[in-house]
Amino acid sequence: MSASALLRSRVKRPSYLSKLARAEDLIDLFPHGSYIGWSGFTGVGYPKKVPTALADHVERNNLQGKLKYNLFVGASSGAETENRWARLNMIERRSPHQVGKDIAKQINAGNIKFFDKHLSMFPVDLMYGYYTMHKPNNRLDVAIVEASAITEDGGIIPGASVGASPEIIQMADKIIIEVNTAAPSFEGLHDITMTDLPPRRKPYLIMAPEDRIGTPHIPVDPERVVAIVESDYPDQTQPNQAADATSKAIASNLIEFLEHEVKHGRLPQNLLPIQSGIGNIANAVIGGLSSGGAQFKNLKVWTEVLQDSFLDLFDSGHLDFATSTSIRFSPEGFERFYAGWEEYAPKLLLRSQQVSNSPEIIRRLGVIGMNTPVEVDIYAHANSTCVMGSRMLNGLGGSADFLRSAKYSIMHTPSARPSKTDPTGITCIVPMCTHIDQTEHDLDVIVTEQGLADVRGLSPRERARVIIQKCAHPDYRPILQDYFDRAESECLKKGRGHEPHLLFNTFDLHKNLALNGTMKIKNWDEIKY
Amino acid sequence: MSASALLRSRVKRPSYLSKLARAEDLIDLFPHGSYIGWSGFTGVGYPKKVPTALADHVERNNLQGKLKYNLFVGASSGAETENRWARLNMIERRSPHQVGKDIAKQINAGNIKFFDKHLSMFPVDLMYGYYTMHKPNNRLDVAIVEASAITEDGGIIPGASVGASPEIIQMADKIIIEVNTAAPSFEGLHDITMTDLPPRRKPYLIMAPEDRIGTPHIPVDPERVVAIVESDYPDQTQPNQAADATSKAIASNLIEFLEHEVKHGRLPQNLLPIQSGIGNIANAVIGGLSSGGAQFKNLKVWTEVLQDSFLDLFDSGHLDFATSTSIRFSPEGFERFYAGWEEYAPKLLLRSQQVSNSPEIIRRLGVIGMNTPVEVDIYAHANSTCVMGSRMLNGLGGSADFLRSAKYSIMHTPSARPSKTDPTGITCIVPMCTHIDQTEHDLDVIVTEQGLADVRGLSPRERARVIIQKCAHPDYRPILQDYFDRAESECLKKGRGHEPHLLFNTFDLHKNLALNGTMKIKNWDEIKY
Repeated sequence: MSASALLRSRVKRPSYLSKLARAEDLIDLFPHGSYIGWSGFTGVGYPKKVPTALADHVERNNLQGKLKYNLFVGASSGAETENRWARLNMIERRSPHQVGKDIAKQINAGNIKFFDKHLSMFPVDLMYGYYTMHKPNNRLDVAIVEASAITEDGGIIPGASVGASPEIIQMADKIIIEVNTAAPSFEGLHDITMTDLPPRRKPYLIMAPEDRIGTPHIPVDPERVVAIVESDYPDQTQPNQAADATSKAIASNLIEFLEHEVKHGRLPQNLLPIQSGIGNIANAVIGGLSSGGAQFKNLKVWTEVLQDSFLDLFDSGHLDFATSTSIRFSPEGFERFYAGWEEYAPKLLLRSQQVSNSPEIIRRLGVIGMNTPVEVDIYAHANSTCVMGSRMLNGLGGSADFLRSAKYSIMHTPSARPSKTDPTGITCIVPMCTHIDQTEHDLDVIVTEQGLADVRGLSPRERARVIIQKCAHPDYRPILQDYFDRAESECLKKGRGHEPHLLFNTFDLHKNLALNGTMKIKNWDEIKY
Repeated sequence: MSASALLRSRVKRPSYLSKLARAEDLIDLFPHGSYIGWSGFTGVGYPKKVPTALADHVERNNLQGKLKYNLFVGASSGAETENRWARLNMIERRSPHQVGKDIAKQINAGNIKFFDKHLSMFPVDLMYGYYTMHKPNNRLDVAIVEASAITEDGGIIPGASVGASPEIIQMADKIIIEVNTAAPSFEGLHDITMTDLPPRRKPYLIMAPEDRIGTPHIPVDPERVVAIVESDYPDQTQPNQAADATSKAIASNLIEFLEHEVKHGRLPQNLLPIQSGIGNIANAVIGGLSSGGAQFKNLKVWTEVLQDSFLDLFDSGHLDFATSTSIRFSPEGFERFYAGWEEYAPKLLLRSQQVSNSPEIIRRLGVIGMNTPVEVDIYAHANSTCVMGSRMLNGLGGSADFLRSAKYSIMHTPSARPSKTDPTGITCIVPMCTHIDQTEHDLDVIVTEQGLADVRGLSPRERARVIIQKCAHPDYRPILQDYFDRAESECLKKGRGHEPHLLFNTFDLHKNLALNGTMKIKNWDEIKY
């Protein structure tokens, strides 16, 4: 094959051009049962051509369930690749995070062996050989990594995400590089560190979000590169979720709290580095920082993923620097980003997920961590992953990386979520979470549109009172208060009142939902405990 | 008062000798409601004279409940001080860890507001002002700190523990130093770092257990020292628990696993730094390393607390270096340690609990972390603190500091614990933990006397099968397998089979225990779900 002029302008390593291939000619590199690593994180920077060619091959030859793979990606990749693989029954095992209707369906149907893992820890455990233990050589077979350009010594300049690519490349026998020419080169936007193993690991010498400690590219052993493929369409991202009235009210409560902390000297005027998750509440919080009173200036961001709202924050002039492992902009956001490259790029840095989510750095910087749970309980445990204790949504992500180590560990959630069978919806404040990803030892603040519970330094019984009073929806508040009062009275009587529960009725709200379509319990007296 | 020759030999700062006082003359420094910090960790290095004088004062004047304090100690202190305070109703609030029958009783009766916290995080949150927020000056009123000696510039040489003393001293308006002359000076045995706050925090530049990054003493502002008290009796420790047949079988399974990991190249021949908790299983594991095949040489230890068994490991010649925040030897162990000082001291270092339990360092060193839970569930969540979800034992301690960040996160437990009402005892492997301190994302290995479950890289359903098969007691195995099979069948049917639970029956084993004195469920068919 001969390379296009555009491709040649991106690939500075001449020997790679002799490895130029079409995706559909690489099928033989992927026998059934292969262990595969992809680049990608939150739906950007993932490989597009080879996964699509493999899916076409399976579909065309009716190989559903006959070519199945163990697939490792830093976080989620594109719907048209990973989700299609799930639909075609091509995934045997998957870790540590995913997004997509079909892949979630296959996980919950038992067809995909999925395990979620702290995003900071996944790349290290991969390097430890924990995910390839049952293979003779304890390595990945193939890595497929998207590049926006290639350096002269064969290194990869990633695109809009770094994720786990450094470690996936370190662990792979064969490497396929998809050079994406449909988006610009991201050269200069990355700070890459590779992973040493103990006893040779070193500190991450990062003291501020803008500190650079690595190289602008991922070093690659050129002899392991088996093919270069040109990729011709950009990341398929979705529009951002707009902030609604509830999320604006949550953001307003949160910003009032941050002002309070500044006023009492526990936060500097420009705050500390901010981490913000994905979703409409996160967008409302970031939006709130860039509008209104504008009391917070010279902000910095240390986070996992940047959404469009951060472009607004840059444009407001209040954001000095942001670093993450991925920029997951909407298609319009990317256009805006490319158009303003000269202005945005000097204030932006992408790192591996092991660094962006590093507890070491998060704790040192004193990050303000904010995430959205499935449900929070009255003692400040939170469920980030499994509905009704069992049904996996997307996975843990970086929530526990941040919430465990942040200076401020904040969970923001609506007090209730819409339900077809109850006008109030289902309560997000519950007696006991049906699955626990964040423990009571990890949360400082719970905030809903109703109010904010500051649980720092409180005993469990104090926490319960303030969470119910400040955060619960008024329709659920008396039900939760009643649960707590009864549990407290019962447990104190029995000499086990530290964290009172009616253990055998603690999921009765969920049970009522399953049986009667509502979490509202009319009368606890009907219930024996 | 005039100082004894012994005291003068320990206190190198002359101005301090003018502050010499008797404990019983310091009562006025402690008005009702004071916020107090003590030195001490796992029952060593705690202040003895002033707490005892305060307790005598309360007892003598019938002031029970009228002089109550907010008490912060790195971990547990001595039974004759803290536990007596609890008995005399002198504790309003307590964090982050405690040991003692009376204090646990008062916590579970609702008389003491207790909250447990990661031991690495407690000192930082204290420095953030999170525990003194409701005081006008946001500081501790008084610190009472035991010293084994005082340096010329007024710094404190701690005794057998460092704990949270550096931060308690930083946060206290007034400092009382108890110089303990009943035990030797521990000069040279400590490596002390103080705590800066973000954005001025720095990396801990420790790359190996023996690395020193601090000073040999805790720097103190001499103007804040209000009194020096001579303390005349040593730490009141208990004899160590001997290893029994069960704990020896657990240790044997664990050592076989470590050999397996060395064989497969995932661990070097001298392992990686070892963390080991307190108790008879921990003693059996450390004992196992120092006897028998002796295949592991040149070991190093990075842990929270050292027990007598580590002296055996030193004596075996297999242990090159150990560091912790406390040495909690038995009275005989201390005698042995003092007698062998010249040999042990060069191989030993005590640090603050923020450093000994630092996730940053634990992850960098690739520590092998081992702890004992209350119960573990079939999906590898663990309960470290609350029996039946509510009754506090001692607190979280450092379990989550280590298990979250260790290279090997290991929970060791007997498969069942003795019960008066069931010959097998109660099962420590349960369908769902009644309280969760360690999540499924934090554990790699569960080991009982029955066997070892290696759950690295497994999906929840795979984990359940291997934990039930390898770890459960044979009397409980069919009951747990039946729970899992029914939960799996039910949840897969409903499209929520990622982590199958019979949510409304998940605590039925515990319920059966409460109602019928046994966790053995005869027939799940009787149970509706």
